[in-house]
Amino acid sequence: MKKIICVFSGGLDSTVLLYKLVNEGYDVTAVSFNYGQRHTKELEYAAKTCGNLNVKHKLIDISSIVDIFAGSALTDAVDVPAGHYEEESMKVTVVPNRNSIFLNLAMAYGIGKRIYNLSYGAHAGDHEIYPDTRPAFVEAFNKLAKTVDYEPIDVITPFLNIRKEDIVKEGARLGVPFNNTWSCYSGGKIHCGVCGTCTERKEAFQLAGIKDPTEYEE
Amino acid sequence: MKKIICVFSGGLDSTVLLYKLVNEGYDVTAVSFNYGQRHTKELEYAAKTCGNLNVKHKLIDISSIVDIFAGSALTDAVDVPAGHYEEESMKVTVVPNRNSIFLNLAMAYGIGKRIYNLSYGAHAGDHEIYPDTRPAFVEAFNKLAKTVDYEPIDVITPFLNIRKEDIVKEGARLGVPFNNTWSCYSGGKIHCGVCGTCTERKEAFQLAGIKDPTEYEE
Repeated sequence: MKKIICVFSGGLDSTVLLYKLVNEGYDVTAVSFNYGQRHTKELEYAAKTCGNLNVKHKLIDISSIVDIFAGSALTDAVDVPAGHYEEESMKVTVVPNRNSIFLNLAMAYGIGKRIYNLSYGAHAGDHEIYPDTRPAFVEAFNKLAKTVDYEPIDVITPFLNIRKEDIVKEGARLGVPFNNTWSCYSGGKIHCGVCGTCTERKEAFQLAGIKDPTEYEE
Repeated sequence: MKKIICVFSGGLDSTVLLYKLVNEGYDVTAVSFNYGQRHTKELEYAAKTCGNLNVKHKLIDISSIVDIFAGSALTDAVDVPAGHYEEESMKVTVVPNRNSIFLNLAMAYGIGKRIYNLSYGAHAGDHEIYPDTRPAFVEAFNKLAKTVDYEPIDVITPFLNIRKEDIVKEGARLGVPFNNTWSCYSGGKIHCGVCGTCTERKEAFQLAGIKDPTEYEE
């Protein structure tokens, strides 16, 4: 059974990814991060999903260094903006270099366990406002992954060329309980329905033509 | 004044690098890491050097996640081997993916402060046993640094094509107080004189023809 590390937030994309990898027969270790995000709620969802799927789950807690991410609305006392991802105002939700940090820590953990496959949920709907989701980043990171250890690490990003609505479709096919995924940045009890990621989540279900089971405040 | 982040361990190479950058007129912010290394002593030297040079110093403490580096002699209850770096036995001193993690965290800190230059002490004498010091790694990392933010980050590695003895010569030229640098992995009161990095340190002074002021146990 091929071993793989899956970077797993508990959000919609990475939950579908986790189901997909398990479905394809991988021996998956899910790695989640506490980085002082407002929405640590996603980590409860991550733990529950791993329990349901009987997948090993490693939580890496870097919340003690949250100050290096100073100024992001996802971690700081800056308001999470409402609206669409494409808007300039969303830049405050960028966490500097977050993805490369997560991926590199996940690789380190994998190397220690001699796991040389790494998967994460980068997808074509990822937004220009996040530099570290763009194809140039993914390509550069994949090359780096070949160099950091004695063995090259293979990066597997099955959603790279599909959009979020296609991920929803794939999730439906795999029987993913969408109610057990968390997207909202605001950290409330239920999804706010107006932040960038809630807006995107709603749209993805609509475009996929699949009933959205999410309870939104607005 | 051009701002730059310098990844700074308090060891010989990065101390010479810091002096060099200051000497060249950069506005330097030094970034050091506590990663649960046995030789946290190096961090005292790092702090002292920054004080002497009046350089801003940021310590990023990731010691809480040291378990992801499981199995390295630099962090774990595994003996630090004596001998020369080229030996197979030295592999236990590899900390998985350490350099990329440090560099990526340093970049995140820099982005938050709008500092788009990053320097570290990679040099031609770095050893095949450390995958993340090889030219292929440096090249891949430099490309990644161009992609992680809106602005490309320039990586400056002035020692990339010189050997450690040349770094010693450069340090002598710049008036670096070598006594205020720490190399030894073993974490004793003075340099052990027999671990890989002590062996290399001794040799570098000999090859440079410069008196080694270091006090060694053996």
